[in-house]
This record gives sequence, C-alpha cells and structure tokens, in this order.
Amino acid sequence: MTLSNTKLEMIRRLIRRQLIGPLGKILDTLKAADLSEIMVKLTPEEQRIVLTTLHLSGKAGELLAELPEKNLREILGGVNDALLHKILTQVQADDAAMLLEHVDRVRAFEVLERLPSMISEKIEEIMRYPHDTAGSMMNTGFLEFYEATTAREALESLREYTRDTNDPIYSLYVMDETHKLMGVISIRALALAQPEDPLEEIMDRDPVVVDAFASTEEAARLITKYDLVSLPVVDESFALVGIIMVDDMIDTIMESMADEAYLMQGVTEQDRLETPVLRSVRSRLPWMAVNLLTAFVASSVVGLFEKSIAQVVALATFMPIVAGLGGNTGTQSLAVTIRALALGELERAEALRAVFRQVMVAILIGSIIGVSTGLIAYGWRGSPVLGLVIASSMLINMTIAGLVGSGVPLLLKAVGQDPAMGGGVLVTAVTDSLGFLAFLGIATMFIGYL
Amino acid sequence: MTLSNTKLEMIRRLIRRQLIGPLGKILDTLKAADLSEIMVKLTPEEQRIVLTTLHLSGKAGELLAELPEKNLREILGGVNDALLHKILTQVQADDAAMLLEHVDRVRAFEVLERLPSMISEKIEEIMRYPHDTAGSMMNTGFLEFYEATTAREALESLREYTRDTNDPIYSLYVMDETHKLMGVISIRALALAQPEDPLEEIMDRDPVVVDAFASTEEAARLITKYDLVSLPVVDESFALVGIIMVDDMIDTIMESMADEAYLMQGVTEQDRLETPVLRSVRSRLPWMAVNLLTAFVASSVVGLFEKSIAQVVALATFMPIVAGLGGNTGTQSLAVTIRALALGELERAEALRAVFRQVMVAILIGSIIGVSTGLIAYGWRGSPVLGLVIASSMLINMTIAGLVGSGVPLLLKAVGQDPAMGGGVLVTAVTDSLGFLAFLGIATMFIGYL
Repeated sequence: MTLSNTKLEMIRRLIRRQLIGPLGKILDTLKAADLSEIMVKLTPEEQRIVLTTLHLSGKAGELLAELPEKNLREILGGVNDALLHKILTQVQADDAAMLLEHVDRVRAFEVLERLPSMISEKIEEIMRYPHDTAGSMMNTGFLEFYEATTAREALESLREYTRDTNDPIYSLYVMDETHKLMGVISIRALALAQPEDPLEEIMDRDPVVVDAFASTEEAARLITKYDLVSLPVVDESFALVGIIMVDDMIDTIMESMADEAYLMQGVTEQDRLETPVLRSVRSRLPWMAVNLLTAFVASSVVGLFEKSIAQVVALATFMPIVAGLGGNTGTQSLAVTIRALALGELERAEALRAVFRQVMVAILIGSIIGVSTGLIAYGWRGSPVLGLVIASSMLINMTIAGLVGSGVPLLLKAVGQDPAMGGGVLVTAVTDSLGFLAFLGIATMFIGYL
Repeated sequence: MTLSNTKLEMIRRLIRRQLIGPLGKILDTLKAADLSEIMVKLTPEEQRIVLTTLHLSGKAGELLAELPEKNLREILGGVNDALLHKILTQVQADDAAMLLEHVDRVRAFEVLERLPSMISEKIEEIMRYPHDTAGSMMNTGFLEFYEATTAREALESLREYTRDTNDPIYSLYVMDETHKLMGVISIRALALAQPEDPLEEIMDRDPVVVDAFASTEEAARLITKYDLVSLPVVDESFALVGIIMVDDMIDTIMESMADEAYLMQGVTEQDRLETPVLRSVRSRLPWMAVNLLTAFVASSVVGLFEKSIAQVVALATFMPIVAGLGGNTGTQSLAVTIRALALGELERAEALRAVFRQVMVAILIGSIIGVSTGLIAYGWRGSPVLGLVIASSMLINMTIAGLVGSGVPLLLKAVGQDPAMGGGVLVTAVTDSLGFLAFLGIATMFIGYL
C-alpha cells in the first residue's frame, strides 16, 4: 500500500513536470498488475500520458489487458485511433477482442479494418463467440502440426512463428488434414524430446478439450478438475479453434466460486458494487418479494397465538431469540454444506452421513444454548416454566435448522438445481415459522403456569 | 455421472473376476481426476487391487496425488511398504511429502530411509515447512544455472535431468554462486532463444517470488495477481529453495475464496462437513454465544415496549416481518461488498461511493417493500395508521441495513481486520434491534390510533 502510494506520487510529479524519459524508466520497473493499481487512481489526462509513454516501450497493451474491465471504456475513450491501433497489435488476440468490447461499435470496426488481416482475422474469430463462452476467452494463436512432423522441425517453425506474434505458446496441437485435433504436446516435452522423434510418438492422444460454445464456468471446471495449464477449444467437428490459458482463467475460477457462495444470500452474479442502482434494485426485488412472503408466513404463525401473547406479553420479548439463534444455526449448516459442494468435496454416498452430523452438531449446540437461555429467562422473569418452554423450543428449532440447512442444498443438487440458490431465505423462513410455532405452541399448552 | 458409473461397474466386475490385464487397460484410458472419483466409491479391498494394477503401469502415484486428502489415511493404510516405496519414487516431491503426512510417523521415517537419498532429501526439505506455508506446497526439483550458461547448454542439461525425475519444469532459475536467485527464464523462452545466447540476456531479472514461510494464501494471492504459471520460493537470504506451480495451487485459490465467503456466517475454515461433531460444536459455540448476546439486546428492545404490545397485540405479529426484511437487505449489501473486496474489485477511493450506492438501493427497495407491506397490513388489520407505522419503520430499518451491510466490511478492512469476519451476525444484530426500536417506538407514539 505504502510502496505503491510512493510510486503513485512520484509518477504524478514526473507527469506534471513532463519528464517523459524518467517517467518511462519508472513505468518500466513496474509489473503490469502493479501499474494497473496505480493507473485507476490517476486522472484521465494522467492516464493518457502514462499510456502514451508506455506505448514507446511497447507495454501499453499489456497494461490495458490487466486493467479492471469497468475502467476500460473511459480510458479507451481517451485514447486516439493511432494509439489504439498500435496497442491492438501489441496484445494477444483474446485481450484485443476484450478491449474492443469496451469501444464504440463503429470505432471498433474502423480500427479492425485498418489492422493487418493476420491480426484482425484472429480478433474477429474470437468476437464471434458470445461473452460468457469458452470461445470468447480463447487465444487463436497456434501453429498447425501433423503427426509425421519431427520435434526438430516443430521447434524451428515455433521459433519463426514467435518472432511475429505475442501469443503465449505452451503446447503444440497436432491435427489431421481436416483440422481435427489428434493430440497435444507441451513445449516442454518438445524441447526435451530427441530431435528426430515424430510428433505422433510424443503427443498425448487423449487431451481434455472444451467446446467453443461451452460456458466459461465449464472451461474453469475442466482446468480446475484436471489441473491444466492450457485447454484446447474445439468446434462441433472437433477442429481446434483456440486455446484457453489457466492464467487467463484464474479470475473466472475465483468469480465462479464467489458467485456460488453469495448466491445463498439471494445475490446474483450480475449484482455487483458497481452495478447501477436501479439494476441492483431490479435484481434483488424478486428475492425480497419471496422473503416478504415467507415473513408473512412467520407472521401468520405469530398471529395464531395473539391470545397467548396478550395473556403473557413476555412471549413477544423472547420471540427474537428463538428465531435468531435458529436462523443462525441453519445458515451455518447451509454454509458448510454449500462450501463442500462448491469445492467438490462431497460424494453422494456421504450425503446422508453429512446431514446426520450437522443435525448432531445442532442438537448439541441447541442443548447448550437452549438451556443457557432458559436459565437466563428464568432469572430475568422468575418463571421456571417459561425457562423450560424457551429451552425446549430452542432445542427443537435448532435441530430442525441443522436438518434444513444441510438437507436443502443436497436436495436441490439431487434434483439438478443450483444447491446455493436462495438457500439463506428458505432456511430462515423455516426456522422463523417453525421456531415461532414451537415456542408459542408449547407456551400456549402451559399458558396457565407462565 | 452416468459415464463414470458405467466405468465403475465395469471395473468392479473385472476386479471380481480377477481379470488384471483388461482392468489395467481400462484404468489406462482414465485420467487421474476421473479415476479418483471412481476410487473413493470402491471398497478398501477393491482400492488395493486398483492401486496394485496401476502400479504396474507406473500410474499409482499420480492417482494417489489426486485423491481427496480425507481418503488418503485409509487407502495408504491398506498399501504395503514395498508398494508405498515404489509409489513415492513415482510422484513429485511435494506430492510425496503430502502422502507421507497421511502415514503413521514411524512408518513414514522407515519408508523415507529406504528411498534413494536424492529423492528422500527433497521430500524431507518440503516436510520441514509447516502445513500452511508456501514451503509445504513447493516442488524442490530445479536445476541450478548461471548467468553465463548458454541456451544450448541449458537445454542439454535439462534433457538429461528430466530423464531421472518426475518434477514438472516450466522455468529455469538463474543463480549466483551463493544460490541467490538472479533471474527466471521460461522453458518456452529458452526453446525459442538463439542457441548461443547466454541466460543473462534472456532472463527476467525481477521475478515475483514468495518467502518459504509465507502462507499458502499469500502464494495464491501472488499467483492470482500476477497471473503466474509458476512462483519461485526463496529463503531469508533470497536463495531459491523451491517452486510452486499454479496447477497445484488452484485448489488453495478456490478454498481461500470459499473461506472468505463463508466467514460472514461465522463458519471458520476448520469447520467442514467432515469435521468431527464435537470440534464443529466447539468452533461454532463462541459465535452462537455472540449471537445469543445480540439476540438478548434485540429482545430487551422489545421488552421496553411490552406495554404497547399488551395494548395492541398485532404489533407482535408484525415484528418478524420488520426484522426479517431488514436482515435480508443488510446481508445482501454485506455479500456484495465482501465479494468485491475478496476479488480485489474495490479501490479505497471508491468505498464511499459504494456505500452510498448500497444505501440508495436499500432506500428504493425499502420504499417498495415497505409500502406494499403497509398496504397489506392495512387490508389485513383494517388500521391505516398501523400500515403507515409498518411502512415507515421498514423503510428506516432497510436504509440502516444497507448502510451497515456495506459499511461494516469496509470499516473492518480499514482497521486491518478480515472484512468478512462474522459480518452476518453483526448486521442482523443491528437490523433486529434498530428495526424493533423503530417499529415499536413509532407504534408507541401513535398507540392511540392503532
């Protein structure tokens, strides 16, 4: 934090004094990820000067590819066509396609038209695929090799190819004459092979692949499951169309974990801090409506017992405790279960045992917390029966909470739904309603002794 | 699911009939990650036969490294010393160290002693570092190169080295005579360099590194931030001691995202589905105690207004609605904010604007939901004043919820705490207490008109 603030101040000073030479030297020492953090704190005018300076050392594209997408439209809006053109030739095709998404449509086409066709064709190929598909995340830079090519020939073509391109290459893809993917070889295996070995002898004939129209989540799942560094993307005829790199996917992997986790709160992946207010409202309202409905159910349960509450008003006072602790118990079991499902830690065969264990945890915590609350209530209100009613209803409610919290996501998964989907609202709905039913119901049975 | 179940049945049948040849062929077609899913469904006796069969083709170690850690103790317990010895020579040193963690201490040392010292030294080097450090996740397989070495010489040493080892190598590390790390070169850059280039001309002199005793989370953060494929691990004198690969870290990256997300529910990272019941109880009890305390605060607020409730029992009926909708609004803002912080999407400068926006969202949703609830209450109970009291107190509570939900994690972060830490409990504590205060307080002011 402090280090990057010092650099930020230094960069600002050099910009003010227009010392482009020293500015370029400082910028050169920074990694793109660090520079990106500084960049978003600069004014539009300062950003323009940084980009122009970086462009001299060919590093402007690298920085732009690293910037948060939400800042791109503004920054690219301040860049002139000549610089944009230059930047697009400096970045990988997938990054170029991503950058062009944040530029006006007409301008994007004009700039594309003026690029060398070798570059623009690759970018257009990627832009054909919708935003959330594997195809939109891929790089199209790869060389075509055949099974009879030798390791030496392959290495030579590679050396030549990389002189003209920025595409990162970790693997070679071996094809037949129809472009069908026959196998994969890592550059590492190639470099270490005997020079005269034909590729078919060193290639892996059964690579993991993903369809170009599959979701980015599916690509992330494959990379995660098989611990891949790169994932080939194929079309419907199994022809290779591009490659996805793990380093480009880490953000997607992290985001899909986060989406899953926060879904249980009724927060969708489109609902971010930077989402416009009205769109956030629209995406949350349906959940709030469901929540309102379940709250009315809980409220109706209370309504059934208004006569008891009128007789013993203290019951109203203890309602929040019974509901609150039950809700928390349920949400904890829910979080533990969804977490295990999201990380792929839970086998179907273990599901029943997992629910059983969560219920046991809930019973033990329910006993301890229930008895404590009962004793406090007894001390506060002087009624031992009230204490017993509270203790027993809390134990019942927290046991149900453990069951519902762990059971709901497993049931949702069993019927093919997203296990995290709105579980939080459902669990508190059940613990509120059943908690009030247990507490006020038992209290009504013993109303004469309270 | 269906595919792997068919394979599972086929494998079981071949084991029963003791057809080891065909069994080996089927097992060979499966990737380690898929085989791992099948393995955990087999009986211990079947697992032993699969491991013995895989061992013939040298693939037993690869499978074991892929199995969930919770299954390892049982499976390794069923493996005899000769097979275990063989397996440890087949896997990378970090996986060997991880496997030995799940074997009795005495047995681990006996097996280590009988391994060739070239292998056992590497494994022991990794076992020196505590479980959650970068050192425990690293591979120690690397060659030492110097700045004057040429690309051709480096490639030749590499070819020789990889004949005797399973360590994956993506980069070369260039050192001075004290082992101090001077620079890094990807194998790709090496393969593509001119053969006579000295390494110092092609190496990156400012590589991102991690300290061996840094946490695995720190290593994950660096890999994520700088989009690295491999991360060199250094000791206090900047000497290279090992390398962490991104594919070994993906699980850690996913887990640290998940930990962060579920922390807001008061679920710690040690509290998993497979955690023994008593340990889960112990880890959750402190949170439940805090929750009990805050619930008593909310309950005391209700207690202040028992006279009003005795006069108008309907107030008790509507309490769950005011508290529930407020709690949900707060938790949603909390989830959106923690999500942004966890993904590094929120700059300090934008924090105030983010809180403002969450409050705006809460005010809009509060108006819509508050007015709807007020109208329903009016229709249900026939009192327009009751409807107004409910609508206004819900709007107040939900506005506060938006402020607290987005403000609390930002405040926690500003004072150097984990922004997710128990935010869920705190937010519902505030929305319960202030919600009851607003609702019952306003109701008491107009009690004559209800």
